[in-house]
Amino acid sequence: MRKNVWIWNHGDWEIFHITRVNLRREVRMMHYPTMWKVSLPDIIANFEKEVDSDGGYIICHTNGEGNVRIDGKHYPTETKLQLSPGHHNIKIHVSNPGGLPAVFVESDVCPSDESWFCRRFSGELVSVGFEPYYDSADKNPESFPFAYETKLPVAKTEVENGCLFDFGTELFGFLDIAGACADQEICIYYGESKEEALDMERTYVTDRVSGKESYRLKQRAFRYIYITPAVSNLAITAEHEYLPLTKQGSFSCDDKLLNEIYSRCVYTFHLNCREGFLDGIKRDRWVWAGDAYQCGRINRYLFADKAIEQRTLRGLLGKEPIDQHLNTILDYSLIWFISLYEHYITYGDKGFLSRIMPMAEKLLTFCETRLNEDGFLVGAPQDWVFIDWADIDKTGAVCAEQMLLVQAYFVMSEMVKYLGISAAIYEEKYEKLKAKVNAFYWNEEKGAFIDSYQSGKNNVTRHANIFAVMYDIATEEQTKSIVEHVLKNDEIPAITTPYFEGYELDVLAKTGNLSDVEHMITSYWGGMLSAGADTIWEEYDPALSGTEHYAMYGGKFDKSLCHAWGAGPIYLFGRYYLGVYPTAPGFETFRVEPNPGSFETMQGTVPIMGGTVTVDFDRESLRVTATKSGGTLFWKGNSYELIPDKTLTLPRK
Amino acid sequence: MRKNVWIWNHGDWEIFHITRVNLRREVRMMHYPTMWKVSLPDIIANFEKEVDSDGGYIICHTNGEGNVRIDGKHYPTETKLQLSPGHHNIKIHVSNPGGLPAVFVESDVCPSDESWFCRRFSGELVSVGFEPYYDSADKNPESFPFAYETKLPVAKTEVENGCLFDFGTELFGFLDIAGACADQEICIYYGESKEEALDMERTYVTDRVSGKESYRLKQRAFRYIYITPAVSNLAITAEHEYLPLTKQGSFSCDDKLLNEIYSRCVYTFHLNCREGFLDGIKRDRWVWAGDAYQCGRINRYLFADKAIEQRTLRGLLGKEPIDQHLNTILDYSLIWFISLYEHYITYGDKGFLSRIMPMAEKLLTFCETRLNEDGFLVGAPQDWVFIDWADIDKTGAVCAEQMLLVQAYFVMSEMVKYLGISAAIYEEKYEKLKAKVNAFYWNEEKGAFIDSYQSGKNNVTRHANIFAVMYDIATEEQTKSIVEHVLKNDEIPAITTPYFEGYELDVLAKTGNLSDVEHMITSYWGGMLSAGADTIWEEYDPALSGTEHYAMYGGKFDKSLCHAWGAGPIYLFGRYYLGVYPTAPGFETFRVEPNPGSFETMQGTVPIMGGTVTVDFDRESLRVTATKSGGTLFWKGNSYELIPDKTLTLPRK
Repeated sequence: MRKNVWIWNHGDWEIFHITRVNLRREVRMMHYPTMWKVSLPDIIANFEKEVDSDGGYIICHTNGEGNVRIDGKHYPTETKLQLSPGHHNIKIHVSNPGGLPAVFVESDVCPSDESWFCRRFSGELVSVGFEPYYDSADKNPESFPFAYETKLPVAKTEVENGCLFDFGTELFGFLDIAGACADQEICIYYGESKEEALDMERTYVTDRVSGKESYRLKQRAFRYIYITPAVSNLAITAEHEYLPLTKQGSFSCDDKLLNEIYSRCVYTFHLNCREGFLDGIKRDRWVWAGDAYQCGRINRYLFADKAIEQRTLRGLLGKEPIDQHLNTILDYSLIWFISLYEHYITYGDKGFLSRIMPMAEKLLTFCETRLNEDGFLVGAPQDWVFIDWADIDKTGAVCAEQMLLVQAYFVMSEMVKYLGISAAIYEEKYEKLKAKVNAFYWNEEKGAFIDSYQSGKNNVTRHANIFAVMYDIATEEQTKSIVEHVLKNDEIPAITTPYFEGYELDVLAKTGNLSDVEHMITSYWGGMLSAGADTIWEEYDPALSGTEHYAMYGGKFDKSLCHAWGAGPIYLFGRYYLGVYPTAPGFETFRVEPNPGSFETMQGTVPIMGGTVTVDFDRESLRVTATKSGGTLFWKGNSYELIPDKTLTLPRK
Repeated sequence: MRKNVWIWNHGDWEIFHITRVNLRREVRMMHYPTMWKVSLPDIIANFEKEVDSDGGYIICHTNGEGNVRIDGKHYPTETKLQLSPGHHNIKIHVSNPGGLPAVFVESDVCPSDESWFCRRFSGELVSVGFEPYYDSADKNPESFPFAYETKLPVAKTEVENGCLFDFGTELFGFLDIAGACADQEICIYYGESKEEALDMERTYVTDRVSGKESYRLKQRAFRYIYITPAVSNLAITAEHEYLPLTKQGSFSCDDKLLNEIYSRCVYTFHLNCREGFLDGIKRDRWVWAGDAYQCGRINRYLFADKAIEQRTLRGLLGKEPIDQHLNTILDYSLIWFISLYEHYITYGDKGFLSRIMPMAEKLLTFCETRLNEDGFLVGAPQDWVFIDWADIDKTGAVCAEQMLLVQAYFVMSEMVKYLGISAAIYEEKYEKLKAKVNAFYWNEEKGAFIDSYQSGKNNVTRHANIFAVMYDIATEEQTKSIVEHVLKNDEIPAITTPYFEGYELDVLAKTGNLSDVEHMITSYWGGMLSAGADTIWEEYDPALSGTEHYAMYGGKFDKSLCHAWGAGPIYLFGRYYLGVYPTAPGFETFRVEPNPGSFETMQGTVPIMGGTVTVDFDRESLRVTATKSGGTLFWKGNSYELIPDKTLTLPRK
């Protein structure tokens, strides 16, 4: 039997939920909408189905208001309608301004499912959107299918005139309060750290309630809860809300610290995987294209959850018109294309790619409205040229942006080719821009790409050079020079954010400098753990101590202590140590290029779309098992075809 | 003191309310959303103001959720915030998905008013939108400022097992029911006619309530209410909801029937003037660009309410992207341009014109995606080539559509010139298309424009020829031929709708055939009154009788009995009998070309933007008074400058 599900305009469910997320941020009892445009589903959805039947019935349940048209005649929704034997054309119109117009058709003939069509006004009939979870009339598609688990505090302490509760680990969810006095107002302070919960002036998230004996507060992130005044019978529990995901990838080695880091990265990352990839579970709880790019890479070596990536990509892009960069950030628009490409190569979902490509082209067209007279991408007055929190010379056209645009042209040319469309335009733009970037930005004397050709300062930072190596824009010779003159040059200012550190480590690993990678993970992530981190922080500066670590953006506790972009080691271990990556969409072919670095033993699994690759190093040997065909192992200069389910064992030395 | 008002993104208030209207249609307890795309305000609005002060306070009331930023620091809304002496940058961000994000700033320094700015994301700072009505924090801008009047039924009759109430005349509003039994369900049938209210199966609008002793039902149009079952103490009243408009224009003559027709046109038209121009107050209660075009022309000779025209024009256009014709109808997109032009010429509101012009250009660009290989406008699969309910040969490119496109190019060229922008592109397109229309569609043998050049049928209908004369596309010679071979040719099928009859009468009057105009008004509108119409019907066929008049679109009572487009005589009397019209934007200059037709006496007033023109014919003389300068009277081949407030008296003969 076909599954009966709620249906909607393809892509609108994703946009609805990502927008809800982006409008849900709060800080010190203020609402904090995004500074960028968010989108909503189409206000009216039109569904259609041709049916041949011997008779039967339909009942249309709608999320919104509308009617049913059978062979041109209108009927009400929520009513059992009999179909006469024969051919029928069924149309359902639903409006829902601000919500998600959707329909669930109960029927013995044509239950709503993926075989239904929708039409966006003057557009063509296309397949509907749906999610298997919403398989009964009473499941509201505006309610996201999270999983829940009740958590009890592990400790309760009276502190001054209040009670401090500790849940033992960071979580996200509803706080349930019982035993309050209806005539007494209570104040609730949420803390990722104990100090944050207790600092009633500067706590990031707070609440205040009165008038009842029990409360369920809205979903928030916390480990500590401080409630004032002290109420003797007050009891709290938390309804932890999370996305039910299954770990598909794993990694372990003989270094306990690194195993611990990996495990905290997993916990941190999972908390931030929700409707889409969030940047941090306390703050911002927004979906940012740059953060999401790193999250996609991490996800592919852990949960390999295609759906969250597609929700994120769609939600970021939103709806037409595109008249602003994603998150207002130039580089984030460009990174979106690269994310889409890496997503496609991993999962090979051509349906998704072909659906989203027309909007991708519109985003690129929008970006090209920002080209300067030399053909380089620049920021318009309201655009944010971000790249990183770093002293980059941002005079005129910034080199790192051009690197991303070069790669955007490359991935667009690849993607349209996969869809059977000529890539000539993108290939030409790619070649032309790449040559121009070399001509305008490569500085032979410095042996590196400079930030700006317009300022005359010839300033070199790591950023553009990292992108140049990451995306193979630098020649082999240039790459060597960049490693020497930039990456391993202490005079070039160090990267300060885990965001860009993720890219730097990628490039160090790609160029074979695994010992630098391990050193950085041990010192930076390890240092964070030593400083008390249970989950990975948004930023870490070894020079700070105590609660100084919790400050950021001018707020004493405004740093996110559970930030997705800190989970980069998951990707690095999978991509460069286990060494598994696709070479054709959907892992139809893939490579395994393992490298144990300095580890004596190392084991792990990488999901490869309907299969896994397991890599296992002990002190003597390497064992590799792939459960599906298409794999090639590269080891010690030789290549080996991987036979499904046959473990290939080779000497380690 | 400056007025303190709610502010929003310019244009969003109009779009919010017109969309609400378009989603409010109901039929036999079904919701009936439009088949065309509707728009909503931007989800997030950003307001901004630079302030220099000696100190003071602000309290930000928001319609939606958000925060206030003073000099970069965030503060909550709904809270009194003190400003230190000096310069401050104030930003307010409000989100409201599905609603109208707006803010009301209470302040002794910078109360929200027209001096505030808003920014649509990456756009420039522009003036906010506001309406003087919303001048206190407790007035919700999502609630439209209608006026209300309690109406009592004039008669109550027991009919079978129910009660029939008659309110004496059609009205629109809330029905209040008192004296019901909570445990008894009652059914309510709304009728524009008594027969409709009593026909429980086929009544267009019905309701069903239970569980309370009194009810306020939602706003609907009706004259009759039938309630079943009969409940002895049941009492009903109606809260009539209407737009408070002042009559600025008037017309009367010695023909009582025509005065009566004029008066019913006024009542009919006023009922349909609400958030925008509705087509009919019972059905569809939608805003259609074609109907609205006629309404604009009528309005200018009656209420001269600029605001309702601007709300209608904006609401019809909606938001980007434009990927569908207005109301799905090719001709309605084109008519929108012409409406905008005639609106501008009347009121001369350059601010409005310059705000809406970028979107107008996008609509034209969209239209041009529908040009065929000969450069003529055709319908794509989901487009509706309407023109009129008539047998037009719609093979390929339809002539009447090209006439409208020619005029659209003309009005666009005029409008951009008024804004100081070069019109060369539009002028060239205008000349080119006009020449091509003549070459492809003018049939010398028929002495008329044919419907289609592609079918080979050389079919002639009135429609394209009427447009050709109305918009001066036909030469003088062609016009003469059209009057003879089309308009006065009984072999050419007659117009059947008051919609197109409005255009035909315009052209007959323009070509000096006032006796035909009077004959048509007397027979068609007069016939409707004889058939029992209190308000003007959507359509009238003298061949029908009794309740046959109430049927349409396959429904026994589906005809609208109070339809705006039937009010055309108001325009005809003002434009061609009183003869007043602007010759420069905002009536800076204007003409008075009165013509009493066959009337022995005729009086009337036409509003002319801050003034009036009064025309008064008795049997001997013509008296014309204008209250402002710029007017020229044309009478009996002579022209006379009109001196403000000086009555010019001339012999009638």
